[in-house]
Amino acid sequence: MSQDTRGLDITRITGSRASRERDVVVRESPLTIFLNDDPLVTLLCSPKDVEYLAAGFLFSEGIIKEKADIDRLFGDAREGAVWVQTRGKRRSQKDIISRRFITAGCGKGLSFVDSAKYSKKLKMTHGPKLSSGVIASLMKDFQQMSHTYRSTGGVHSAALADTGGIAVFNEDIGRHNAIDKVLGESLLKGIRTDAMILLTSGRISSDILVKAARARIPFVVSRSAPTDLSVKLSKDLGITIVGFARGSRMNVYSNSRRIALGP
Amino acid sequence: MSQDTRGLDITRITGSRASRERDVVVRESPLTIFLNDDPLVTLLCSPKDVEYLAAGFLFSEGIIKEKADIDRLFGDAREGAVWVQTRGKRRSQKDIISRRFITAGCGKGLSFVDSAKYSKKLKMTHGPKLSSGVIASLMKDFQQMSHTYRSTGGVHSAALADTGGIAVFNEDIGRHNAIDKVLGESLLKGIRTDAMILLTSGRISSDILVKAARARIPFVVSRSAPTDLSVKLSKDLGITIVGFARGSRMNVYSNSRRIALGP
Repeated sequence: MSQDTRGLDITRITGSRASRERDVVVRESPLTIFLNDDPLVTLLCSPKDVEYLAAGFLFSEGIIKEKADIDRLFGDAREGAVWVQTRGKRRSQKDIISRRFITAGCGKGLSFVDSAKYSKKLKMTHGPKLSSGVIASLMKDFQQMSHTYRSTGGVHSAALADTGGIAVFNEDIGRHNAIDKVLGESLLKGIRTDAMILLTSGRISSDILVKAARARIPFVVSRSAPTDLSVKLSKDLGITIVGFARGSRMNVYSNSRRIALGP
Repeated sequence: MSQDTRGLDITRITGSRASRERDVVVRESPLTIFLNDDPLVTLLCSPKDVEYLAAGFLFSEGIIKEKADIDRLFGDAREGAVWVQTRGKRRSQKDIISRRFITAGCGKGLSFVDSAKYSKKLKMTHGPKLSSGVIASLMKDFQQMSHTYRSTGGVHSAALADTGGIAVFNEDIGRHNAIDKVLGESLLKGIRTDAMILLTSGRISSDILVKAARARIPFVVSRSAPTDLSVKLSKDLGITIVGFARGSRMNVYSNSRRIALGP
């Protein structure tokens, strides 16, 4: 039993038969991020790698930009809390809340999206070429790494990879959290993301694309679907979206110049 | 082409072959809810039935409790805005934001959850018995109604049903939004929910359970998985959770006394 899952007794029904059985479900816990001693947000998440989640959340929200912005970071999954002290100018909690909530709410980063659409300087023209064979191979590895999903069917996975393989991998009950965990781990470990490929098990909505843009990631790959807004944004931002990546099949929605056919 | 989807040109790769093809993706738009003339939140959603979404969101957040709390409600999907005027004591926007954001953030309703756990009076002891055959039949209808999903693979569905069939159905790119849409439609149309079954295509996390509890819905059924926290809450709140409802198979996670075997 991993720390991500929990056993419990259920009634399993198959047609006209019912039996009492032991089953495994995914764990879900509240996690409060305290920023400079004030509670910033409470997320519902898988209670694992909570420091990565907190660092990635602050990065995705634009509250920190690099590891050097963090003075101290301490997390306790049992307590359901992560405490972060930042360096430099300390914005008040109220400023951050107003900015984030009013402009973006749970659809995080809309203000960023709006400015991004009209800002040429954010456009990514860099990024390696990537072959369809490498994408297929990475997605195969990605699926195999998702142990929790295979045991409970209840979590999303995210990873950062390069052509050599998967570098960072994590899972969470929330698809945003899973991505924040891999971004947070990269940030804390000093792993550069600007030539990486973001793999996700979830749909590619615009807020996922905003996370990739902040980390200067040129590729977002999913076995699921993108939205029209994320495709539009990806063209503005110079990010390549690959969706429905299943086996040797995949759809390239934008910036296909970066994708080469072949192994 | 429905108003939920949009056509665009993609590169489809199958093994070593690539072709330029027309594809359909699901639409995603920002929707700002203005409460008593102040912007409350911006959601990313499918731009359809935005009035239902706004009403359901306000209900799920505990800002309104019944239709009579709404003085006026007007939505414009093209403008990406819904304007709501409420009756009675008008809480300031700041009160609502502080309460919601600090205690709950994107994991909505934690404060409610915490109090619910310790409050016997919220426990639902009512609710009709439901047969496994009816659940299987409802889920079959539910899947067939999800046209957008079948064309794009990019949305979640939600429905309210009773033993006679599905009464309210909607879809959205967000699983929370899809549920808010059916709750909002029920509220605006005066459909009672306290003997209904909530069907969802998505995972049952604790925030989904809180929505059901607010609407006094005794059954939550999904073809996907619940979390441990939602199962725990469902026992405290007296809600029956059925997960992995696929064909004639299903798992009953809590309050199985309400489920009968048979057609």
